[in-house]
Amino acid sequence: MIIRLKNNILETQAAQLAAEHQAFLIHEDGFFQLITGSGVKELPQNLEAHTEQFWVFNDDMQLASKKYRATTREVTIGNVTIGGNTGNTLLIAGPCSVESEEQIRQSSELLKGLGLTALRGGCYKPRTSPYSFQGLGLEGLKLLAKMREEYGFAVVTEARDATHIDEIIEYSDVIQIGAKAMYDQGILRASAKTQKPVLLKRGFGSTLQETVQAAEFMLSGGNPNVVICERGLRTFETKTRFTLDLCGVAYLKEYTNLPVILDPSHAMGYAYGVPDLARACVAMGIDGLLIETHPNPKVAKSDASQQLNHQEFEQLLGSLRPVAAAVGRKIV
Amino acid sequence: MIIRLKNNILETQAAQLAAEHQAFLIHEDGFFQLITGSGVKELPQNLEAHTEQFWVFNDDMQLASKKYRATTREVTIGNVTIGGNTGNTLLIAGPCSVESEEQIRQSSELLKGLGLTALRGGCYKPRTSPYSFQGLGLEGLKLLAKMREEYGFAVVTEARDATHIDEIIEYSDVIQIGAKAMYDQGILRASAKTQKPVLLKRGFGSTLQETVQAAEFMLSGGNPNVVICERGLRTFETKTRFTLDLCGVAYLKEYTNLPVILDPSHAMGYAYGVPDLARACVAMGIDGLLIETHPNPKVAKSDASQQLNHQEFEQLLGSLRPVAAAVGRKIV
Amino acid sequence: MIIRLKNNILETQAAQLAAEHQAFLIHEDGFFQLITGSGVKELPQNLEAHTEQFWVFNDDMQLASKKYRATTREVTIGNVTIGGNTGNTLLIAGPCSVESEEQIRQSSELLKGLGLTALRGGCYKPRTSPYSFQGLGLEGLKLLAKMREEYGFAVVTEARDATHIDEIIEYSDVIQIGAKAMYDQGILRASAKTQKPVLLKRGFGSTLQETVQAAEFMLSGGNPNVVICERGLRTFETKTRFTLDLCGVAYLKEYTNLPVILDPSHAMGYAYGVPDLARACVAMGIDGLLIETHPNPKVAKSDASQQLNHQEFEQLLGSLRPVAAAVGRKIV
Amino acid sequence: MIIRLKNNILETQAAQLAAEHQAFLIHEDGFFQLITGSGVKELPQNLEAHTEQFWVFNDDMQLASKKYRATTREVTIGNVTIGGNTGNTLLIAGPCSVESEEQIRQSSELLKGLGLTALRGGCYKPRTSPYSFQGLGLEGLKLLAKMREEYGFAVVTEARDATHIDEIIEYSDVIQIGAKAMYDQGILRASAKTQKPVLLKRGFGSTLQETVQAAEFMLSGGNPNVVICERGLRTFETKTRFTLDLCGVAYLKEYTNLPVILDPSHAMGYAYGVPDLARACVAMGIDGLLIETHPNPKVAKSDASQQLNHQEFEQLLGSLRPVAAAVGRKIV
Repeated sequence: MIIRLKNNILETQAAQLAAEHQAFLIHEDGFFQLITGSGVKELPQNLEAHTEQFWVFNDDMQLASKKYRATTREVTIGNVTIGGNTGNTLLIAGPCSVESEEQIRQSSELLKGLGLTALRGGCYKPRTSPYSFQGLGLEGLKLLAKMREEYGFAVVTEARDATHIDEIIEYSDVIQIGAKAMYDQGILRASAKTQKPVLLKRGFGSTLQETVQAAEFMLSGGNPNVVICERGLRTFETKTRFTLDLCGVAYLKEYTNLPVILDPSHAMGYAYGVPDLARACVAMGIDGLLIETHPNPKVAKSDASQQLNHQEFEQLLGSLRPVAAAVGRKIV
Repeated sequence: MIIRLKNNILETQAAQLAAEHQAFLIHEDGFFQLITGSGVKELPQNLEAHTEQFWVFNDDMQLASKKYRATTREVTIGNVTIGGNTGNTLLIAGPCSVESEEQIRQSSELLKGLGLTALRGGCYKPRTSPYSFQGLGLEGLKLLAKMREEYGFAVVTEARDATHIDEIIEYSDVIQIGAKAMYDQGILRASAKTQKPVLLKRGFGSTLQETVQAAEFMLSGGNPNVVICERGLRTFETKTRFTLDLCGVAYLKEYTNLPVILDPSHAMGYAYGVPDLARACVAMGIDGLLIETHPNPKVAKSDASQQLNHQEFEQLLGSLRPVAAAVGRKIV
Repeated sequence: MIIRLKNNILETQAAQLAAEHQAFLIHEDGFFQLITGSGVKELPQNLEAHTEQFWVFNDDMQLASKKYRATTREVTIGNVTIGGNTGNTLLIAGPCSVESEEQIRQSSELLKGLGLTALRGGCYKPRTSPYSFQGLGLEGLKLLAKMREEYGFAVVTEARDATHIDEIIEYSDVIQIGAKAMYDQGILRASAKTQKPVLLKRGFGSTLQETVQAAEFMLSGGNPNVVICERGLRTFETKTRFTLDLCGVAYLKEYTNLPVILDPSHAMGYAYGVPDLARACVAMGIDGLLIETHPNPKVAKSDASQQLNHQEFEQLLGSLRPVAAAVGRKIV
Repeated sequence: MIIRLKNNILETQAAQLAAEHQAFLIHEDGFFQLITGSGVKELPQNLEAHTEQFWVFNDDMQLASKKYRATTREVTIGNVTIGGNTGNTLLIAGPCSVESEEQIRQSSELLKGLGLTALRGGCYKPRTSPYSFQGLGLEGLKLLAKMREEYGFAVVTEARDATHIDEIIEYSDVIQIGAKAMYDQGILRASAKTQKPVLLKRGFGSTLQETVQAAEFMLSGGNPNVVICERGLRTFETKTRFTLDLCGVAYLKEYTNLPVILDPSHAMGYAYGVPDLARACVAMGIDGLLIETHPNPKVAKSDASQQLNHQEFEQLLGSLRPVAAAVGRKIV
């Protein structure tokens, strides 16, 4: 249950009520609000006098629900706002991994030339084998920060586990929570305590319900700036790396108030399919797109097969704009 | 292996060679062609003198492969051709089940008014429970035939099992093979012996490889007019009915020469998601779309939740045209 | 709803009531019974006077439900009865495909020597490629019949599609419905009209609910002798061919009255894992086991990798008996 | 590649060689060993003189491979050794969550009375909703430590994320890595630096290959005491909570040298199916079993539906011993 307290309630009083009812306490839209589990179906009697409005839910998708907030939340990434009535589809691009200053600078030049504003690049790679390239770590974060300095980008990079979440929060403009880390409460709870936007990737074995509930960790912890990213499910089909779940995206758009970003690169796993899929994603009317591009995919240290080269990326961008226009949106 | 015999080879001679090499024999592009399993990697010596050209394959996706035929096959449905360089995206629409003359006539009027030419409607419903509505059977086929008479539509209806495949071949302009019947060799073999277009639905638990191999049953049996329909995989996600596999569509477009039609209605299972998904499908640059629409979905005898009403359908069509244009295609 | 009519109701009268209520009519346990869809929750008023007892259900698992019949049905295969309180676990064994008289005779000799009574062998192979070995067809059925003549076995062979279901019913002692044919209503309806035992394999992409509902086609059609066979689900894991669903078996044992047979050979896909899995299956307390064994697996025309050779099979059988004894059962 | 250096190589020298070849360095079986990625297929020339033996691999399952070590590793948990030729199947039991001293003491009394030695209980619960019971945390760990003091048990409890892995290593006798944390490199890397046994649960969406590779993080980091736990895959089937993958267990037993423990409670999700499944697991010849039991399951704060009550647990244990004996093993 979400309980919006009257606006004459002071913070200390609100905190006391929250403690009493084992509820989370957030401040949103000018009100203090208590959030209990969805098992609570009736407004506690001693709260009646203090309550402005309250919402009852069938399950633990509460703050993320359209029932609570009928329009998509606005989230600002760098100097672009997505969600709400902006009609913006933010294109976040860059290499799978930050590999060197030269490489990430080449990516930056590409984006700059195309008028894009959000640069991605992994520094802590969630590789499944200890024998693979694990990322540049802090050194990579510093390179991203340098690109931000020089080019004015918002930088987006991923937290692999809780041991370096503080670094990610410090250096990145968007806290990306990787698909393999979606249940990581160390990351979720730390991300709840900042106001930085969070890009929460759905796990490839995770239900929509679990994904939205992972977002609730941050929403109920005080960070309203959460964006969900669908990047493909693991299914029995092995010709492609994953199966992008656009039916799930339709569900998220209908029932939740969270902006949705799609990652066709990881879903497909092969560069040849990325352009068609990216156009399909844009036609869904989504809030953003994550595309991997590398100056020279063949020598990439991770995900070599799925990254577009710069020429392919530029062509793709050219083809996305008319599709966006056809559904009343704009690629930014 | 596909072995294209020289064009001076007579049919009896070709048949003899086919028998000798346990190969299928087809006539395509003006040549007799032998098709063996893909295990055959070297041209048999005694065929060398008779061979115009031959193709070796890694697996049993042979006649359907881009390696054999670099462009998508053209298939004609009613008076519309899809595939090749036509740029056509054929919209096949109508109710889940044919329920009555009044109902199917209402659907026909809708299509007619919108300039559409392909009417779908199930007569033999592959219900998983014996206690559900099983379809009108032959009576339904006759109603479809009547609509074709009156409105000039191509009608599309599904074979549920081999017991009525002859009726389907007789009455339907397109032999639809349902997802649950994809492995049904009674249907596949019968469909191979006609030239009527076949709409082969991928099973919800079937791999891309198996689906293309099911198409090979018809291609190697002499029917070149096969179209594949993706209609969603069964995954762990239960908020939507199935998971539409657009990554798989990207694969099919890259590696096979078969036109691809998409069915977002069955994938989603809920009308609210169909428009977004349909636009995404069109943006993939596909050859056709299957959309369920019913004069009054609430009283539909099957799949009530996923059928659009006529007004929703008309709005959808209006929104599809600009998306198609944005990717250089046309809804027909 | 299942409505057991009073035992003074005559067949013609029962048939009339069935027609009136659009219900299936069967005769079981000495009573005529009407079976409607589970949507019917209240006994129709005009049936009250004629009704001995009735059962209401949440879904279309009705005749198969423990709620209707608290103990597992007894089904007789050859001269062995399984289910009920028999404690029998029937071991059905033999090659994947019947390949020649010599081969199937070798299998027969093996079984005979080990005191086994049920011989399996495929004649119509549901291969996914037209270029693979498709089975001996009728010739194979005749070889199986010959083995029955000579050795007294019950023979078990699979219907691939509805075109040859009559032959299967004629020649086989058990109508095996393959996993790929589980939804084939041509087969299901034909199998409903005989009293021969039916071994219904769960599709690898089929839910437990759908599988039990497929059984209901036969139960409601008048054939009470249905056995369910679990043979593995298709999952994302590719190191093994399928994933044997023993959790599902626990469900079937708890909620349905149908005997359950397991097929670890197809689930695993590799001979090395079959013995461990077969022991696990027996420890589940199941009614039967389907094991593929071939005189010389290396040259088998289908499923070469998963068939045990005769020595391995004999060792396996030796190890199964003590496991069966440990759970109070007997391998027969 | 695993490179076993000659036994006259000193540690400093070995470390230098490891650095030079970007290899992990471990000391096992009396030798220093370098471990590189499996991409290295030929012994580097400058190592030839220092190499005692080396192993080449197809993929990154190296130290865990039967090719490297032909028999299952021995791992000691409390005063019981599993793996090797011990024939031991360790039964680890206790409640899902530690809820109070009274509750965990009741569980301890149960185990003590039955002669069992390994107590499980969760303190940091990986709940998918922020609104569910999250565990007692450190307070729970202290209760487990108290039980160890008093009863002499080995205690087994789970790390949810990297923020409390040090506490787990300090308090628990076995570091359990939960299914949702299988990719958590913060946990994996910390667990690699101790010699405490690690119970690595396979993620419900994780392949066997990934699971074994997660084990390689610890093996290559210097901790040889890794046990894999299979606890069910997430599939399309919803009648049970997960699908226990015994085919996968057969694979692990054939190809890896890691002991395998099974968790039928989480796989099934319902107490009714646990006994049958537990017997099946034991019949697989596995090294251990994890069973949830609670003094009063109905009031359990997590996983109420799947925990056995104490009487059911005692009955189960009684039925497991003969099954174990039938496959030449012993429940300890």
